[in-house]
Amino acid sequence: MASSFQPLPGFRDFAPRERLLSRYLFEAWAAVAGRYGFSEFEAPIVESAELYLKKSGGELSTQLFRFEDQGGRDVVLRPELTASLARIAAAQQRDYPKPLKWFEIGRCFRYEKPQRGRLREFYQFNADILGEPSPAADAELVALAIDVMRELGFSDADFTVRLSDREVWRQFAADRGIDDLDAFLQVVDKIERDPEERLTARLEPFGVTLDGVRSFIADDANRSPNLVAIMDDLEARGLGAFVNVDLSVVRGLAYYTGVVFEVFDSRKALRSVAGGGRYDSLVSLLTDGGSDLPATGYAMGDCVIAELINDTPQALLRLQAWQQRQAACDVFLVIADEARRPDALALAARLRDGGIAVDFPLTPTKINKQFKAADQSLARFALVVGSEYPELKLKILAARTEEAIYPNADPVEVIRDRLARPDGPLIA
Amino acid sequence: MASSFQPLPGFRDFAPRERLLSRYLFEAWAAVAGRYGFSEFEAPIVESAELYLKKSGGELSTQLFRFEDQGGRDVVLRPELTASLARIAAAQQRDYPKPLKWFEIGRCFRYEKPQRGRLREFYQFNADILGEPSPAADAELVALAIDVMRELGFSDADFTVRLSDREVWRQFAADRGIDDLDAFLQVVDKIERDPEERLTARLEPFGVTLDGVRSFIADDANRSPNLVAIMDDLEARGLGAFVNVDLSVVRGLAYYTGVVFEVFDSRKALRSVAGGGRYDSLVSLLTDGGSDLPATGYAMGDCVIAELINDTPQALLRLQAWQQRQAACDVFLVIADEARRPDALALAARLRDGGIAVDFPLTPTKINKQFKAADQSLARFALVVGSEYPELKLKILAARTEEAIYPNADPVEVIRDRLARPDGPLIA
Repeated sequence: MASSFQPLPGFRDFAPRERLLSRYLFEAWAAVAGRYGFSEFEAPIVESAELYLKKSGGELSTQLFRFEDQGGRDVVLRPELTASLARIAAAQQRDYPKPLKWFEIGRCFRYEKPQRGRLREFYQFNADILGEPSPAADAELVALAIDVMRELGFSDADFTVRLSDREVWRQFAADRGIDDLDAFLQVVDKIERDPEERLTARLEPFGVTLDGVRSFIADDANRSPNLVAIMDDLEARGLGAFVNVDLSVVRGLAYYTGVVFEVFDSRKALRSVAGGGRYDSLVSLLTDGGSDLPATGYAMGDCVIAELINDTPQALLRLQAWQQRQAACDVFLVIADEARRPDALALAARLRDGGIAVDFPLTPTKINKQFKAADQSLARFALVVGSEYPELKLKILAARTEEAIYPNADPVEVIRDRLARPDGPLIA
Repeated sequence: MASSFQPLPGFRDFAPRERLLSRYLFEAWAAVAGRYGFSEFEAPIVESAELYLKKSGGELSTQLFRFEDQGGRDVVLRPELTASLARIAAAQQRDYPKPLKWFEIGRCFRYEKPQRGRLREFYQFNADILGEPSPAADAELVALAIDVMRELGFSDADFTVRLSDREVWRQFAADRGIDDLDAFLQVVDKIERDPEERLTARLEPFGVTLDGVRSFIADDANRSPNLVAIMDDLEARGLGAFVNVDLSVVRGLAYYTGVVFEVFDSRKALRSVAGGGRYDSLVSLLTDGGSDLPATGYAMGDCVIAELINDTPQALLRLQAWQQRQAACDVFLVIADEARRPDALALAARLRDGGIAVDFPLTPTKINKQFKAADQSLARFALVVGSEYPELKLKILAARTEEAIYPNADPVEVIRDRLARPDGPLIA
């Protein structure tokens, strides 16, 4: 049955070639987080449904991958990572100096109709700073978000961070007697996507006009002190060109309390690539006031960024160059004389002990097929064990050149030395 | 509510300190797999229950983390990785040269009463060779299993691989007219744990005695040709001291078809640390004969090995030394003159662009508190940005020494150079 070859709808199989893309993203995420002094944590995949229902105020609940476990518990496969982070930080904050700078790379789940860029299982990178209310923490996070994009090969021509502050809208609403801020922000959130008529009609009950909202958004005088501080900070870092203040960004989820931001491709061809903001009340909410920590964080999934890499030549070239370097092994041992197999096994063990990645034919194989396998393995070198053993032949596969490794030389040293250098013409 | 701080029963939170142990295991697993020429793949967390029920022949079914999804599908959180691997390999084998040497590090789930070393969510490392029926593939895998243990700091005094072959027992059963091989192997599986009386009683229906079985196990003449070939292979690699043939090992699961092995701590204080074997029929079974691949694989979880590291001084020292090197940052920027904060931000950005991990106080902080934070961060260096800027002071925190970085020097170069060298006395 063909069906038994397939994963469930909305789930992906990552055979080694597909896995390389995930691994590339993970390494970029972890490398930038590391340079910013973030420490990795990891939360469970399964959490109580209550944790996520509480956090989202019900908004996410229609998409939750939710079920009853064998013990009768109402549980979810986590839809994102922030609620678990808040729970763990509340429990363990006393054991770590503040602010906490924590990151996580993990699988998340949604139960919704699978579509392009929206799957039931996906990876998410989360970086958060907890315990620091200053906009300096938001600036550090926006800078990290920019550097993740730069690490992946994107320039300021490819993407923009749109920065906003819900506090500006809270003040706007207070000044105009708008009581239901969340409902009002739902309209602002759609200001670039909904048709004018619909926007006008939806704004009317709040006693404001579309033109009024648009000119408020356009007026630099409406920037909050936090936005000004963050822009100054990013300018000092040389990252000003990557950021625009754009008050039309408010983020969908109700739990954001202040500064929010989203990363968009410059052509706006895709959904937002990443997004985040300040959520100073969440830890207190989730712990029923048992703990309180100001917090700011952001997340990036693996689906939209993969599309953007694919659409951006220099980012794609960078990925491809990296993939080329990820060959499964450094050295392919060619066993030219089957009587020498025990010596080849000993040599493989010695090279591997020396940190060199080695593959070899497990069973007797014709020489030309071994060289073909060596090429397919993308190994840089073939090392030939033949009747002249303990003398060995080292072939540089791309250059089609070879040299002898004489019995008085240590093959581990010779190969390590070669691996550290680019391929070049050899003296045979 | 304290309860909302806790993960679900049998699940673990990995705050950064706990995460370091997982990360240490992941890196060791991936490093050894890489040296052996294995490529990483990853399967979905959620699979159809049918896939695992088919594979296990019902044995695992009482422990499955199983539920109905919102679409009415009977699904599981994967209990292990082999069935998904077999499914993916069957679907994609034509795209890769044989044999496939694939590994995976992923989370697995069981619904059973949580106890020491047995949790509802755990990590598992899986390495498999598909497409090669020769015992050379089993030897390659046993060698990898040994090298994973060596990589973690264990010697042949700490653990043993016990190697066996179900084929020997198939022959034993055939010679003695035993029809139900699986039922018979269930008894052999308990030969070291069950009391003599019970074993005698359970063996009686098969027409064999406990003494008979024991002397069969003890007799080297009963080694199969595959076991002899594997031992010769491992001897050639210099790994013979780590392995014993022990026919009492048969592995619980019915899907093993030939050579099987388990890794045990030498004191046998714990459950098996890792185990695996040949499963030549599984791919065919899971694809209803649509695909056929001989296969051999092994798996190691993260729980038992963590206990063994903890119980083994030189393995624990190795872990601790690694943890020491995993400080969240290389350099802690001390901002001695708050007017220089924009310069400090620019410097942080420049160092990070140069691949150096940097942390700094996000808000104005007293100097002595900054140095305390630098110590807590485990950074090797403090870099002081003060009124003398662009001259900087570089302090080696452990050695309590300092030197100046003059404006004509590139701080990225100076710090990279220092990071590559051990700390030593400096000329101030």
